[in-house]
Amino acid sequence: MEKFVLGIDIGGTNSKVGLIDESGSIAFREIFPTKSEESFDIYLPRLKEIVDKLLTITGKVPIGIGVGAPNANFLTGMVHEPPNLSWGSVDLKKRFEELFKLPTFVDNDANLAAVSELLWGCASGVKHLLVVTLGTGVGTGIIIDGNVLQGAFGGAGEGGHIEIVPNGRACGCGGAGHLEAYASATGMKLTIKEILGSDVDLALLGTALKSGDKDALKIFGESAKYLGKGLASMATILFPEMVVLTGGVMNAGPIFLEMIRAEFEKMIFRSFRGKIKVEISSLPKEDGAILGAASIVFHNGIK
Amino acid sequence: MEKFVLGIDIGGTNSKVGLIDESGSIAFREIFPTKSEESFDIYLPRLKEIVDKLLTITGKVPIGIGVGAPNANFLTGMVHEPPNLSWGSVDLKKRFEELFKLPTFVDNDANLAAVSELLWGCASGVKHLLVVTLGTGVGTGIIIDGNVLQGAFGGAGEGGHIEIVPNGRACGCGGAGHLEAYASATGMKLTIKEILGSDVDLALLGTALKSGDKDALKIFGESAKYLGKGLASMATILFPEMVVLTGGVMNAGPIFLEMIRAEFEKMIFRSFRGKIKVEISSLPKEDGAILGAASIVFHNGIK
Repeated sequence: MEKFVLGIDIGGTNSKVGLIDESGSIAFREIFPTKSEESFDIYLPRLKEIVDKLLTITGKVPIGIGVGAPNANFLTGMVHEPPNLSWGSVDLKKRFEELFKLPTFVDNDANLAAVSELLWGCASGVKHLLVVTLGTGVGTGIIIDGNVLQGAFGGAGEGGHIEIVPNGRACGCGGAGHLEAYASATGMKLTIKEILGSDVDLALLGTALKSGDKDALKIFGESAKYLGKGLASMATILFPEMVVLTGGVMNAGPIFLEMIRAEFEKMIFRSFRGKIKVEISSLPKEDGAILGAASIVFHNGIK
Repeated sequence: MEKFVLGIDIGGTNSKVGLIDESGSIAFREIFPTKSEESFDIYLPRLKEIVDKLLTITGKVPIGIGVGAPNANFLTGMVHEPPNLSWGSVDLKKRFEELFKLPTFVDNDANLAAVSELLWGCASGVKHLLVVTLGTGVGTGIIIDGNVLQGAFGGAGEGGHIEIVPNGRACGCGGAGHLEAYASATGMKLTIKEILGSDVDLALLGTALKSGDKDALKIFGESAKYLGKGLASMATILFPEMVVLTGGVMNAGPIFLEMIRAEFEKMIFRSFRGKIKVEISSLPKEDGAILGAASIVFHNGIK
């Protein structure tokens, strides 16, 4: 019999719920507003209603729940004062398990993305993996010997917050010169403004890159330089078999990937050269978050 | 009955052999010249003679051999063209096991230092650890969930070769601006020359630091800035419980440690602040290498 899990992605604006089988196929999905001003005690019954509806429609019984949320800690099961939500700190794992009577796992989206790449993406069979999500921010999910690197207290893998430009741009975290301040969509918008002197839509520039547009080459070239440098620092420490890039910024496609690969090879520790694959995620972007959330349930051996 | 292992450290100038028990006590040690111009086939019988003598004198029978060597790869058991030795590539593990009829493990000195800190140093019970060796070069040994991070192909943890100064000093590895080019003894000698305009002995400056000498404060302050930055990048990725610093440069002592701690806390990802201990190794420096070599035998469960 096919097994299903609930994958739940809680974002600052919307929440997504999906019912996903062991092959990573999505049987059903639903999106609803998170309502960031509401408390968790009001959010949870709203979510329950949607889950119940989804299970009634599909007639499936899930074996577990995976939840992706900002600042979620896999080790403690807690969400600590998520930015953009008025929740304070919540024991997400405990509250979900009490309400749904199902084993529940929580983690942040970059760690979840890394697990879904192992299970259903281009990193099948890879034991040492670095996954970098390039969206509003830059997140990193690290797989060591087949397991997510959580570090001593959970929440390891903040590669978006290593300094790549001394005394550089302010970063959303309060630091300066971090990879995220340059290679995220937010950072690239600043680069566009700096180089072109005006606001040009990033997605449009990504399309222009495919036809060899000069400005696009300049902007993405600049971003590839920073990204190649940051990835090289991470890979010089971790020596993974593969680096997988995901998130909206990667819509720019293969030309951008080639630029990143070239900078990465230039900056990586010399004995590691030519040994680490750098790829774009093959998973569907719009469902990446619920796939990620669902993947940790299977990855943690719930059958 | 007490169990002993042979700890062997192969350096470019000297080799050291020690007989070490499970508590990390050294029953016997011997130093002899490596003779870097000799081939491995000439070196090995010379080593055998010294080991045989040592075992005859002590009357002990070791249960295994741990070997530290430049470019040694734990996963393959090989040494790949070690710099400063005319060995080419050698299957060290195989050759040792054939000759000595004892289970043999090989690794590089930074990884070995990390294991000995777990077993006998200040990191007892720590599951996520970063050990940084500050000598001629900068090496990093990383412990994840109690195991040495080897990465996909062995030899992970080259944190000395992440860029901390864009377009900075040439590094011995062929790169530029790397942590090693600033925070190693070699790098600090360049800093001394740059700041003081002349060669001043690093060990002397370390002693001067203890009495608050202005030049020493300047030199070590500069080094602490680079080191704090590099350690913060590594810890932002790995989120270890503890960072242990070892090697000759750390002879400068507690004032230098406080400078490093301050820079580290300034540069680390903000949510990690105040959570990661930074310490100086408490293991005896002169025997660190053979202790490290011996520790992997016990760590790998040979009893």
